Amino acid sequence: MSQSPQSALPVFRYAIRADLPAIVALLADDEKGKTRENFTNPLPDVYGNAFDAMEATSTDALPNKYLLAIMDEQIVGCLQLTLIPGLSRQGRLRAQIEGVRVSSNYRGQKIGEAMILHAVNIARDLGASLMQFTTDKTRADAHRFYQRLGFVASHEGMKREL
Amino acid sequence: MSQSPQSALPVFRYAIRADLPAIVALLADDEKGKTRENFTNPLPDVYGNAFDAMEATSTDALPNKYLLAIMDEQIVGCLQLTLIPGLSRQGRLRAQIEGVRVSSNYRGQKIGEAMILHAVNIARDLGASLMQFTTDKTRADAHRFYQRLGFVASHEGMKREL
Repeated sequence: MSQSPQSALPVFRYAIRADLPAIVALLADDEKGKTRENFTNPLPDVYGNAFDAMEATSTDALPNKYLLAIMDEQIVGCLQLTLIPGLSRQGRLRAQIEGVRVSSNYRGQKIGEAMILHAVNIARDLGASLMQFTTDKTRADAHRFYQRLGFVASHEGMKREL
Repeated sequence: MSQSPQSALPVFRYAIRADLPAIVALLADDEKGKTRENFTNPLPDVYGNAFDAMEATSTDALPNKYLLAIMDEQIVGCLQLTLIPGLSRQGRLRAQIEGVRVSSNYRGQKIGEAMILHAVNIARDLGASLMQFTTDKTRADAHRFYQRLGFVASHEGMKREL
């Protein structure tokens, strides 16, 4: 099967509000996400409200935005990229990712890898010196994927429901 | 030895720029922090710049601020509290903590516990339904401390230097 040049490499852009249904569809297209999200038409207001809250604290220099991977004119991948300034480690700027998803129809094409590396480049350009995230301990495949991309499971990711 | 009522319970407030030397002193008053920070007089500009960056993305409703514990008119504890809006889990608002420290002169008085619980209350009042952080896997004492406070090490904390 031949592959057209368009489908070989994704392009990337930040999400706008109109992308919300496609993003929530991706978030729900996941073993854990399918029970955690509420992907209905129209979309529940909680998603739009959360998008507005992200915008409220996001700047060009310190984004808290969803990065989208586009192929075949479709949104095929997403991740939330948050730049978090802080004082520790001599005022180190941290980049954090969350909600990493690739459409089940597009897995196995290294889209996730390209998306993570694109986020790494954005973060580095903005002055971050560390990228971090937490991933459920049951997601063994995900851990191997991230280890191949240079991530180290050096920390415990601790959570508490409030 | 009797304990005065003033020293029994810390009070809490958010940090202002003038607190920076005391905060950096606390960050450095730690097994790992002592080699990671640069606590000099005057303080290196990186800390002030990082404080300004925190302010730039911080709002009352979605803070990214240092919370301080005060006892005996001294800053005896600190933690960075960051509220992170996002789309996953139905637009769940997350609270994240970082740089948790209690002065070595004030340990064993449950100041850390009071500080975490105060941060939990702030986060809950602001609408967060989850608190999260990563902690180095070598900090076994810290893990037990957080587990007693209801945190679960359900996730891997993965990091990559950029």
